[in-house]
Amino acid sequence: MENGSQRKWQFGGNEELNTAAISVRGALAMLMNNVNNPDDGDHHLQRPTMMLGRGDPTEFRSFWTTQSAVDAVTDALQSFKFNSYCPTGGVLEARRAIAEYLSRDLSHKLLAEDVYLTGGCTQAIEIMVSVLARPGSNILLPRPGYPQYEARASFDHLEVRHFDLLPEKGWEVDLDAVEALADHNTAAIVIINPSNPCGNVFTYQHLEKIAKIAKKLGIFVISDEVYGHLTFGSNPFVPMGKFSSTVPVITLGSISKTWIVPGWKLGWIVKNDPKGIFDKTGIVDSIKNYLDITTDPATFIQGAIPQIFDRTKETFFSNIIGIMREAADIVYEMIKEIPCLTCPHKPQGSMVVLVKLNLSTLEGIDDDIQFCLKLAKEESVIVLPGVTVGLKNWLRITFAVELPVLEDGLRRIKAFYQRHAKKQ
Amino acid sequence: MENGSQRKWQFGGNEELNTAAISVRGALAMLMNNVNNPDDGDHHLQRPTMMLGRGDPTEFRSFWTTQSAVDAVTDALQSFKFNSYCPTGGVLEARRAIAEYLSRDLSHKLLAEDVYLTGGCTQAIEIMVSVLARPGSNILLPRPGYPQYEARASFDHLEVRHFDLLPEKGWEVDLDAVEALADHNTAAIVIINPSNPCGNVFTYQHLEKIAKIAKKLGIFVISDEVYGHLTFGSNPFVPMGKFSSTVPVITLGSISKTWIVPGWKLGWIVKNDPKGIFDKTGIVDSIKNYLDITTDPATFIQGAIPQIFDRTKETFFSNIIGIMREAADIVYEMIKEIPCLTCPHKPQGSMVVLVKLNLSTLEGIDDDIQFCLKLAKEESVIVLPGVTVGLKNWLRITFAVELPVLEDGLRRIKAFYQRHAKKQ
Repeated sequence: MENGSQRKWQFGGNEELNTAAISVRGALAMLMNNVNNPDDGDHHLQRPTMMLGRGDPTEFRSFWTTQSAVDAVTDALQSFKFNSYCPTGGVLEARRAIAEYLSRDLSHKLLAEDVYLTGGCTQAIEIMVSVLARPGSNILLPRPGYPQYEARASFDHLEVRHFDLLPEKGWEVDLDAVEALADHNTAAIVIINPSNPCGNVFTYQHLEKIAKIAKKLGIFVISDEVYGHLTFGSNPFVPMGKFSSTVPVITLGSISKTWIVPGWKLGWIVKNDPKGIFDKTGIVDSIKNYLDITTDPATFIQGAIPQIFDRTKETFFSNIIGIMREAADIVYEMIKEIPCLTCPHKPQGSMVVLVKLNLSTLEGIDDDIQFCLKLAKEESVIVLPGVTVGLKNWLRITFAVELPVLEDGLRRIKAFYQRHAKKQ
Repeated sequence: MENGSQRKWQFGGNEELNTAAISVRGALAMLMNNVNNPDDGDHHLQRPTMMLGRGDPTEFRSFWTTQSAVDAVTDALQSFKFNSYCPTGGVLEARRAIAEYLSRDLSHKLLAEDVYLTGGCTQAIEIMVSVLARPGSNILLPRPGYPQYEARASFDHLEVRHFDLLPEKGWEVDLDAVEALADHNTAAIVIINPSNPCGNVFTYQHLEKIAKIAKKLGIFVISDEVYGHLTFGSNPFVPMGKFSSTVPVITLGSISKTWIVPGWKLGWIVKNDPKGIFDKTGIVDSIKNYLDITTDPATFIQGAIPQIFDRTKETFFSNIIGIMREAADIVYEMIKEIPCLTCPHKPQGSMVVLVKLNLSTLEGIDDDIQFCLKLAKEESVIVLPGVTVGLKNWLRITFAVELPVLEDGLRRIKAFYQRHAKKQ
């Protein structure tokens, strides 16, 4: 089994792997397959699998979404008013509610027409990448990043150019690299803030610098804010749309993370463009044309959005943020006790953190993939190999799990290290 | 307004229009915009808009879905067990329930692994077209057909070759044309049964012939059965999967039409392949790879599928079928009384029928688009111009509406004819 999996994990040996070949979902399925099963005979190893690999804590009671959101969807469903096809772009009341919700943090007022509903942020990415894929054009993506962008770009034959996020600078964008990479065929730069996979949150000042560089380069910004408002450190969440008078911004978002309902598949593409620049480029028409020929989020979930926004209590969010803050502390402190791992930056947002794997401290483990496969097999703990998110020999650890589970998982990683530590 | 709309409707004057340029949704939106609004001053014309343009009767009480389906989704939602991401391909219990549901009409037994859940049939089409789009390859599509196929093929640069459906033969496939069109780069033939836009239902014998020709040509069949079981004439519905020991078949389907819930966005791609031919072609791997990087139907709707299938009473379907049978009678009889329209074949399935527009009987109307635009403006009746579905100067009329609405709509079409009839 392990050999088979490892063969599938070969990417041709390049240092910069072909991330397009792997999705997070595919990688996690592969690791789950590697967890020992009872037929293998190693019964003493049978323990519950610790999924520290994905941003989906829905299985844990303390991360359950609010009853008021569930009731809002129930009400929309039971009304029989939202069983029909939706209009292109989505149910108007939902678009308006999202516009109002996002406008609270902006300097300009979004209109319903600025909001296009999508099947989660996944489809929002799919649409934006497709819309930008013209022969010869390119897009700037962060490294490390979220491989859905690379996968869709590869699928749509859109050239990708990577700029680095700098661990020594708290995962800020290497702005000089951005300037050097862009040319007249560059359409846009993507940022993910709060960051998946790094767990940092960009400051107002850094976002302002990104806006100014994008303006100078004549490109626009796609700001993936799927983890928007999920922040628990010193940097508050600032939406990129704040800078849309400098440069036009497309914001991608969803209720998946903030309401802890990734399975509801309700996301959005939002146009922040007070100067009306997008309308001249045809990009908005391309988005609408794509929406005309693709699937939509379920109409009754759209129909529930106004009530979800209206009735969710502030304490729901503050409880989740409180747990996440504690989890970030635990993960940061416990990783200090595991010599093969280094966390360059304490997470301040999202549900994940990126830690460096120090292979020189380990015996018989060659890379992050081997580490993750063996860890899954021996400890039933799933973490995502950094290569999946563009950074070889790092690990992405999800800390959005119940705190005892998190502690247990990290203890198992420590035990794994101790068994595999290089003899002095 | 009309001029502006008409400009947008120009397709360069070819007889075979570029259907890729129009979606049904786009066409309907355009027509809805053409309905007189109160600001135009023609207040005497203000009447409720009759939407006879799309297969979505959810607004009518007698077409409401069954309470048991709504309750099944409510139960799944309120259980808090289905808020997570779903695994690639969908929730296993839902895949198994669909396999069992479809197997009832087949000679072979489908397994859960043969079923992949999609965001309605729309996404199923999107995925299948994408998977087949390789440089140089082509696909055979029916004309008239459902323009989603053409739109996605154009988007994915997959060559389309059209075979005709023959009105004089009850809209059967022109089998000779299929043989003449296919070459060694042809991947598949698409059939839509029960037919959208024609309203016919293929016989067992005709499907068998299609299977044999596909086998001879070395291509497989994609059978779009989104209207499966919605039949009310003399031909019973026979799934193409019945012939999968002759030729491998991919079936596309959804709960949208049978349960009258197009807004729930739950469809499927099903592999009917008892001889295991697909596994050698890589097509199934391509489907899985695509599913890994695209959006999914909402998990809790998937979770509700077993209960929906289990608890929906037979009377729900028989009631709907009863209304549809009556509606088919009405539309067929009333069209006989409208000299500018000819219905070559009484509808036996689906929710739509295709009727020929006899322009020679009309004054000042040049084509189907102009007919539809004027009809929308003057009578607030929406029907779909045939050009949208590949057949210029025909009309697609949806008869899945409340019967009094249908009768009123057809009476308005008759009045429209009478005002525009050529003077003798």
